[in-house]
Amino acid sequence: MLKQVKSGATTVDDALAQLADFPYEELGFAKIDHHRALRRGFPEVIFGPGKTSEQIATIAEHLAARNDKVLVTKVSDDVYDVVRQRLTDAEYHPVPRAISVNRAKKAARRRGIMVISGGTADIPVAEEAALTAELMGNKVERSYDVGVAGVHRLLDHLPKLRQAKVIIAVAGMEGALPSVVSGLVAVPVIAVPTSVGYGASLEGVAALLTMLNSCSAGISVVNIDNGFGAGYLAALINR
Amino acid sequence: MLKQVKSGATTVDDALAQLADFPYEELGFAKIDHHRALRRGFPEVIFGPGKTSEQIATIAEHLAARNDKVLVTKVSDDVYDVVRQRLTDAEYHPVPRAISVNRAKKAARRRGIMVISGGTADIPVAEEAALTAELMGNKVERSYDVGVAGVHRLLDHLPKLRQAKVIIAVAGMEGALPSVVSGLVAVPVIAVPTSVGYGASLEGVAALLTMLNSCSAGISVVNIDNGFGAGYLAALINR
Amino acid sequence: MLKQVKSGATTVDDALAQLADFPYEELGFAKIDHHRALRRGFPEVIFGPGKTSEQIATIAEHLAARNDKVLVTKVSDDVYDVVRQRLTDAEYHPVPRAISVNRAKKAARRRGIMVISGGTADIPVAEEAALTAELMGNKVERSYDVGVAGVHRLLDHLPKLRQAKVIIAVAGMEGALPSVVSGLVAVPVIAVPTSVGYGASLEGVAALLTMLNSCSAGISVVNIDNGFGAGYLAALINR
Amino acid sequence: MLKQVKSGATTVDDALAQLADFPYEELGFAKIDHHRALRRGFPEVIFGPGKTSEQIATIAEHLAARNDKVLVTKVSDDVYDVVRQRLTDAEYHPVPRAISVNRAKKAARRRGIMVISGGTADIPVAEEAALTAELMGNKVERSYDVGVAGVHRLLDHLPKLRQAKVIIAVAGMEGALPSVVSGLVAVPVIAVPTSVGYGASLEGVAALLTMLNSCSAGISVVNIDNGFGAGYLAALINR
Amino acid sequence: MLKQVKSGATTVDDALAQLADFPYEELGFAKIDHHRALRRGFPEVIFGPGKTSEQIATIAEHLAARNDKVLVTKVSDDVYDVVRQRLTDAEYHPVPRAISVNRAKKAARRRGIMVISGGTADIPVAEEAALTAELMGNKVERSYDVGVAGVHRLLDHLPKLRQAKVIIAVAGMEGALPSVVSGLVAVPVIAVPTSVGYGASLEGVAALLTMLNSCSAGISVVNIDNGFGAGYLAALINR
Amino acid sequence: MLKQVKSGATTVDDALAQLADFPYEELGFAKIDHHRALRRGFPEVIFGPGKTSEQIATIAEHLAARNDKVLVTKVSDDVYDVVRQRLTDAEYHPVPRAISVNRAKKAARRRGIMVISGGTADIPVAEEAALTAELMGNKVERSYDVGVAGVHRLLDHLPKLRQAKVIIAVAGMEGALPSVVSGLVAVPVIAVPTSVGYGASLEGVAALLTMLNSCSAGISVVNIDNGFGAGYLAALINR
Amino acid sequence: MLKQVKSGATTVDDALAQLADFPYEELGFAKIDHHRALRRGFPEVIFGPGKTSEQIATIAEHLAARNDKVLVTKVSDDVYDVVRQRLTDAEYHPVPRAISVNRAKKAARRRGIMVISGGTADIPVAEEAALTAELMGNKVERSYDVGVAGVHRLLDHLPKLRQAKVIIAVAGMEGALPSVVSGLVAVPVIAVPTSVGYGASLEGVAALLTMLNSCSAGISVVNIDNGFGAGYLAALINR
Amino acid sequence: MLKQVKSGATTVDDALAQLADFPYEELGFAKIDHHRALRRGFPEVIFGPGKTSEQIATIAEHLAARNDKVLVTKVSDDVYDVVRQRLTDAEYHPVPRAISVNRAKKAARRRGIMVISGGTADIPVAEEAALTAELMGNKVERSYDVGVAGVHRLLDHLPKLRQAKVIIAVAGMEGALPSVVSGLVAVPVIAVPTSVGYGASLEGVAALLTMLNSCSAGISVVNIDNGFGAGYLAALINR
Repeated sequence: MLKQVKSGATTVDDALAQLADFPYEELGFAKIDHHRALRRGFPEVIFGPGKTSEQIATIAEHLAARNDKVLVTKVSDDVYDVVRQRLTDAEYHPVPRAISVNRAKKAARRRGIMVISGGTADIPVAEEAALTAELMGNKVERSYDVGVAGVHRLLDHLPKLRQAKVIIAVAGMEGALPSVVSGLVAVPVIAVPTSVGYGASLEGVAALLTMLNSCSAGISVVNIDNGFGAGYLAALINR
Repeated sequence: MLKQVKSGATTVDDALAQLADFPYEELGFAKIDHHRALRRGFPEVIFGPGKTSEQIATIAEHLAARNDKVLVTKVSDDVYDVVRQRLTDAEYHPVPRAISVNRAKKAARRRGIMVISGGTADIPVAEEAALTAELMGNKVERSYDVGVAGVHRLLDHLPKLRQAKVIIAVAGMEGALPSVVSGLVAVPVIAVPTSVGYGASLEGVAALLTMLNSCSAGISVVNIDNGFGAGYLAALINR
Repeated sequence: MLKQVKSGATTVDDALAQLADFPYEELGFAKIDHHRALRRGFPEVIFGPGKTSEQIATIAEHLAARNDKVLVTKVSDDVYDVVRQRLTDAEYHPVPRAISVNRAKKAARRRGIMVISGGTADIPVAEEAALTAELMGNKVERSYDVGVAGVHRLLDHLPKLRQAKVIIAVAGMEGALPSVVSGLVAVPVIAVPTSVGYGASLEGVAALLTMLNSCSAGISVVNIDNGFGAGYLAALINR
Repeated sequence: MLKQVKSGATTVDDALAQLADFPYEELGFAKIDHHRALRRGFPEVIFGPGKTSEQIATIAEHLAARNDKVLVTKVSDDVYDVVRQRLTDAEYHPVPRAISVNRAKKAARRRGIMVISGGTADIPVAEEAALTAELMGNKVERSYDVGVAGVHRLLDHLPKLRQAKVIIAVAGMEGALPSVVSGLVAVPVIAVPTSVGYGASLEGVAALLTMLNSCSAGISVVNIDNGFGAGYLAALINR
Repeated sequence: MLKQVKSGATTVDDALAQLADFPYEELGFAKIDHHRALRRGFPEVIFGPGKTSEQIATIAEHLAARNDKVLVTKVSDDVYDVVRQRLTDAEYHPVPRAISVNRAKKAARRRGIMVISGGTADIPVAEEAALTAELMGNKVERSYDVGVAGVHRLLDHLPKLRQAKVIIAVAGMEGALPSVVSGLVAVPVIAVPTSVGYGASLEGVAALLTMLNSCSAGISVVNIDNGFGAGYLAALINR
Repeated sequence: MLKQVKSGATTVDDALAQLADFPYEELGFAKIDHHRALRRGFPEVIFGPGKTSEQIATIAEHLAARNDKVLVTKVSDDVYDVVRQRLTDAEYHPVPRAISVNRAKKAARRRGIMVISGGTADIPVAEEAALTAELMGNKVERSYDVGVAGVHRLLDHLPKLRQAKVIIAVAGMEGALPSVVSGLVAVPVIAVPTSVGYGASLEGVAALLTMLNSCSAGISVVNIDNGFGAGYLAALINR
Repeated sequence: MLKQVKSGATTVDDALAQLADFPYEELGFAKIDHHRALRRGFPEVIFGPGKTSEQIATIAEHLAARNDKVLVTKVSDDVYDVVRQRLTDAEYHPVPRAISVNRAKKAARRRGIMVISGGTADIPVAEEAALTAELMGNKVERSYDVGVAGVHRLLDHLPKLRQAKVIIAVAGMEGALPSVVSGLVAVPVIAVPTSVGYGASLEGVAALLTMLNSCSAGISVVNIDNGFGAGYLAALINR
Repeated sequence: MLKQVKSGATTVDDALAQLADFPYEELGFAKIDHHRALRRGFPEVIFGPGKTSEQIATIAEHLAARNDKVLVTKVSDDVYDVVRQRLTDAEYHPVPRAISVNRAKKAARRRGIMVISGGTADIPVAEEAALTAELMGNKVERSYDVGVAGVHRLLDHLPKLRQAKVIIAVAGMEGALPSVVSGLVAVPVIAVPTSVGYGASLEGVAALLTMLNSCSAGISVVNIDNGFGAGYLAALINR
């Protein structure tokens, strides 16, 4: 038996050695996972906060050398000023505070994703979701400021909601929008809590808890203000 | 000036001495505030938890000697067995787990209070609210299990909701009911979070936060599972 | 039976289609709920944070085109500078940091609302409550800095407190004011916790919890620093 | 303009009146939303906690009268003893502590859902997810105890994971399983935190936070121990 | 310099070696600090929870062999049954759930400590405080159920409160009693939050926060339900 | 009996009316409690945060008109610039960020208070405590940076600690200093947690919890960074 | 380039396929990681809570078939009754509530690990640590009840502490023991918070935070009550 | 017996008096523990936040007078500008924001410590760990951006990880890196959560909880962002 275990161990080392051959690029401060586009269907996305402009620009440049799409999230236009010196076709999206590069051939975009927001202040997060899904090849329907305090505004878009294959519902404060929407449709609802609010909103934790406790099945939740994650997931579902 | 302050001090002592003459009854383990019925319009209510059956029965007996209504909240029927030995006309309400005595002359009950609940499991708290308001002279409309996952159940009662002068909305889990109701009416909504739920409901804290962060104005909130407080407040508003 | 269900479904779609005809105005980043004034008795109120000055000014302008009252809460005077270019009769209230427009004919204001604060630092929140209630047609009594550390300051206003039909009690730090006031009167007390304090005040959460746990019935609570919500609710109760 | 608004109000009342005609069944303590199967594709599911056995049995009975599938979650076998007196074809599933009725004709089950768990103690929650998805017409692959402390156990199932269209990853303690799985596949991962663990697991909150903060996109999260919600959502995605 | 440091090191070892000679008694599962009575003025007190009855009895016996007073806190009468077999003069106090031995000569007890409670349910904690202070040689005034909902009950005892040299104020729920009392007197107030309450009382955390944030100076706080700590501290202050 | 209750009510109103005659000064935004010096032994202290410089200066001026001591806590020197224009003898203390006026005749200061701090960064809070106690007529011993990582630094001051009648122990991070000190002395220890630290110090909450849970009796705790409260309480104890 | 990426992908699949060959044993409800003993130096350990007795016994039996040591943590003796029917040489340790099997040849145990506890109630956790380290081939020194309230009890063992190569310090309540010990020695200290305490101990969270914020470097922390993890880590350090 | 205790007391005073002779240097605002280098193997380290530049420079100067190594953590280069005027050989490390002085003779550095990070944004904390360990005489291997979303990047360094004697794993967001690494090696893993992330990362608390709940034994945790503590501990283990 011991022998058997030992041969297992050898296998392990071989296997691990081969895994180590995966194509990634070493930048010292970062290791770009070029294999990701193949393995997961979309290249690595750069989360901006905590990185210097210089680091972001370098990673973006290297990603763009091997991928036709680049996305940087949650950055100011100061970062963009540094990035576009390296990637002249990079675009800045001021509402979601994101940078994108898209060199893919124009192809028909897949329909099926709808993004809605409870209020006006939730739009930056909603737009981060929409931008991500668009970059991943989707056509995105939007309807903003349809919160539960005047629910008829939502209902006016019910036909579109019912045509959607997946709905991203973005809301701060009490975060009740996903529950109400989910109760009216038969498709997955991705709930995105936002940090919009004050006091007992606890910077979005209240909305997060609301969404996690929804009495309407068919809802799942991403991190507070995580429009990117919602857009990415919606694109996976909509494939 | 010093003299002036000193005479103020004398006034203080006189005033405090007179306040100390307020009618209350000393039981050693409790001081019954008989003045409360006069000052506040309703006698002291006995919160059950943490008191022995013997203590509850004794307080109830002394309250009943000077008031025509007694209410004990959040107690088991074991407590009731002790209480009814002293107060033979005490009634036990198993759903809200309350004891009441009502020796007031039958008078027309004031209309205007409606109690609704999100789900079936919220009924004990809703009934505590209804019982309290009824004991305070109100006729209470009820509609239970009208949560946001099937909002048409709520709408069927919209005419009644619109006739109400104050609405008590009881809900656990995500606690979105008060926001949706408040968006449809022009009267105060008292939101009561319940501890119904599990996991991230955090024993009612999630519903509490939802209600505090409602984007629909006209809502205020009481403690988790505090049906009594909601019923009491509704009765004050409905006077 | 199945048929019956199906016909129900048809009804739903008809009903939802009609709900979608509610009068609201589409601005892209916002959907103004003009129906709200009719349904709820007061037009939509603009919560400032998270919106751009331009968005606020546009919404305010559109609201003012169909309503005689506009209220914007929690904004700096920078926002006001943009708004008054569109609405020359807009006023800025620096203490509660609010903008209002009031084109209603002067009518007798309803008495019955009193606003009190525990300390001087709570005044901005208290004034947000008072301004809201005033805009909704009420005459508001005020008494500030009547906290429990020197309770005689509160008692000097007891006659006024007893004449009130609803009391808004604003307090930070330990937030004990509503309990003490409620113990002396027979009317609803709306408790507003504020973020005044430091350390274990947890930015107002301590005061919020105090108020939710009050041993004196007749109290309900709104969000931390939510003077607007308290003023709005008081106006509903005082109708 | 006022006229226009008013006519809008009329429309509202008409619309709301019609919505109120939706088919639901009034039981007093519950309102069964029979319309839900049509609107959402699956009948109402009974969440057990907080309801009496009698209430559960009655709701189940009425649901079964109009639907061919019934599901009751998070109940003991004591509840089952009451339910099967009314529904003799009800089955009890002791591991997920659920009751089901399934009178649908046997049809080919849809492939595409895989349920995995980090440990043995997470199996009850995983089985609740699997049972729900199965009842909704899916064939479910399972692989349990594949946590990150011995990641090769997971990799052995990689071919199956890659064939899945949606993966439910159930894990307690540190809850790292969904991140690792998501990094290897190109499909949606539904993360289910469990209350398995002790101390700083905070009854599942630690795993919940881990999953919400995953650095791997494509993950969304449901409530702690909410296997039902995950199974339901997976079935929607897999349609 | 190095030499100097080294000689310091030597001193250290000597000093530590001597500290190690302090009189304590090794029981294996416990080390009784007999030196404490001399150093701190009162012998070690046994905190019951987490210890077996056998362990408690053994420690109590060894303490009693060298001290004339023994105190065990937060234990059931089952523990007492074991203890009194070893210490026949041990007394059980059912309200505070404590065991005491007192073989000190009867001496005049020091006046100056007053214990008050907000409600009846706080009495067990208040009695733990009183018992501790009495065992430490004090005569303790008590007044229970003097909460802020009927503040005149407190004022009736104002003369006694003003004669006190230190006041222990015990309260659950919102915990406002210490603030109100402190505002009326010129002596230290020891605030003891209790776990009395429910929902947002968070098992005493709400009362704890209230007391820490008191706007009235002269208050300090001990742990939730820590009557012992309050009584001990009061005795130190009253020396 | 009813008559008796009614006469009680009359007494109440008389008493409350007299309480309302207490000497306080109405400034609109503040009500100065001049009676406090008499009732509590020290005049009202001005908590700076949340008040405008103008408000602070006005309150300070009015306090100084009737009291020989004024204290303002937690203010910048910008506030001081405004205050000293009205009170030319006001002093600014940059370390604790406080303003004081002291016109009392020089008298012998009472000995007995010692203030110690765990680290250098805790000194501002420690100095706030010391300044308060000094203004209240005490001579204060200080010893800073005596934290538990090098406990011999504390022991060097043991003779002084043992001469103290009350010790203020100020510490951030893990906040273990009060426990260790209390274990060596027989006097009250006032524990002051500070917000010094980072990460899991949760802005002082960690130190606060440590101190509340001390296994050494004789400790009580004030709010995070509340040097003033500790100094005030120490002065009361040391009277 | 694309080709290069693709070949990388192939490598991945090969590698993952080989990893999947690791020796583990499939039990359906568990996958035993027999490779772990080789890879990590010690076989899989069974965490008891959430597993049935039957599951535990089966896993233990299969582990024992290929390893000479088995450890089950946090189980009652009911579980042991089931286990010993399969593994007759299994031992139950009632204090740490653990089951062990040890068929390794008696070898000299490595010295260097010392386990200390703050109080008597912490002993079960301390013993779990000691048992784990012993099973991993260490001789463990113990000293219990050496908390900071009587620090000389600790100092008596200072020579032993200084001979240790790694110290496990177990403490509940305020959890200050690790800081004090670490300040006296030059070796790693593993801090284990326990759930001993009440109220603001928050079931061990207070002690956990204390230890994480220690001002004395050289300390790291494991989960609340995680004696096993501390013992395991100490054994790794002591190799 | 009393005599015996008394003599013990004498010993105490002698012992404490000698402890007080430990070599430390009094600066008023700080007491430099020069004995620490001898007792613990490394001189006192200056934690920057909360100290003025002047205080830091003075402490650093005095430390450098008696030690050949000085470390200041978490400071800006403004502080460095003040320090290098006193210590011209001080170096500033901008990534970890630290100042060091190293006058020790160049000696061979001990191998065995490896520092890895989950992402690029975690590097400042990782570098603080590495710098600390290097200053304590170690040669440190580094590998950054090896998070679990692309685990092959980690595996490429597996040979180095297996050569390490202790691994420091730094990660923010979900913090799963330590668990995955620990599952592959047989050495201690020091987990360092970072505040990298947003929303439900709760400024590092999520990563902290993940690490504390790791299902892989052999991990211990230090405070959020505490690179220094991890580096220090690794150096102790690697001795």
